[in-house]
Amino acid sequence: MREAYHVELDNLADRLSGMSSQVADAMERATRALLDSDLKLAEQVISDDVKVDDARADCEEKAYALLALQAPVATDLRIVVAALHAAESLERMGDLALHVAKAARRRHPDPVLPEQVRAAFAKMGEVDVRLARKAEEVIRTKDVEAARSIEADDDEVDDIHRNLFSVIMDKDWPHGVATAVDVTLLGRFYERYADHAVSVARRIVFVVTGRMPGYTGSDV
Amino acid sequence: MREAYHVELDNLADRLSGMSSQVADAMERATRALLDSDLKLAEQVISDDVKVDDARADCEEKAYALLALQAPVATDLRIVVAALHAAESLERMGDLALHVAKAARRRHPDPVLPEQVRAAFAKMGEVDVRLARKAEEVIRTKDVEAARSIEADDDEVDDIHRNLFSVIMDKDWPHGVATAVDVTLLGRFYERYADHAVSVARRIVFVVTGRMPGYTGSDV
Repeated sequence: MREAYHVELDNLADRLSGMSSQVADAMERATRALLDSDLKLAEQVISDDVKVDDARADCEEKAYALLALQAPVATDLRIVVAALHAAESLERMGDLALHVAKAARRRHPDPVLPEQVRAAFAKMGEVDVRLARKAEEVIRTKDVEAARSIEADDDEVDDIHRNLFSVIMDKDWPHGVATAVDVTLLGRFYERYADHAVSVARRIVFVVTGRMPGYTGSDV
Repeated sequence: MREAYHVELDNLADRLSGMSSQVADAMERATRALLDSDLKLAEQVISDDVKVDDARADCEEKAYALLALQAPVATDLRIVVAALHAAESLERMGDLALHVAKAARRRHPDPVLPEQVRAAFAKMGEVDVRLARKAEEVIRTKDVEAARSIEADDDEVDDIHRNLFSVIMDKDWPHGVATAVDVTLLGRFYERYADHAVSVARRIVFVVTGRMPGYTGSDV
């Protein structure tokens, strides 16, 4: 049973790694669609989201099979449940990339973002994608060193996000209320994506190593 | 074992019902704090959030005990996993109520909301709280009829939320960008709370009845 358990756990980890890669690609493309007002790319992100949903359903089935057939206990059990939570967060990250792509499509051919905040979004997109790729890397290489810098990346997104608000709220903001609302919501999507990515990366480290990095609560 | 399983499942359902009640209270108070600029009430919501986090940890422990000791399969297994997901969503609902309370505290003694949007937030708060209380009721009474109107309630929040945007984005919006940003984020918190409440209510119906209402995917 231990042998079968580990083979099935590896399959589940591979699928989670694939999902991390899918949602990293989705956010990379959505950010490019947003910055370049690229309708075709936005449409691609929107139509690809169903693949993320399918991958999540498949992860759940693999986790159910593990639980039902292997009846793991103790740490083994927590690892499978962590994988279930990670799959849920990854699906949500896909949804957030989808929201970004939909914003790009809604305003097309106009740009959504004024020049003043383009750099902030380019940077948030870059860090978000990096976070998702780290999660993927941790699984592929089983090298949890890659997970060490996760918190720093998340802090970077939070800093850019906070700074974005001071730009929008400045009394000299010249772009009007509608643009401020778009920028506010988009900023929130990037910030939430990073939060989920951190949570996924921690859980994936746990799935790979059986230990939760920098974690003191019971929220595995 | 079947007897023990059902006793433990009832315990878990009770704890989820308690969490639903906690997050309903939190959103009710946060909305009052927001509308009345009531600092004391806002502080109470903020300090009570740790109790929701504790309840979630306790639900997880109960679910782990069920999985490890009873090794449920098939529908029984899916029910326990649904409870785990429901606990996660309920914790998130608590966080969203916390965000509302923090907004009320941040602007105190000034009101966060201009007169023009007060009614919309009063209504969204009312429907959000009603959704959380329905989840609680379904568990307590095991009467899933209460769950039937969940989708309609969620549609109501979505309608108010959409209408809110047209108010903010109107070119005659006289309250400036900073207020529009506050209103945008607060609107998003109420909308997300309702989304999570719907997901929780469906999962709770599944925990109680073993059947997912109006659900066609595998996302239990």
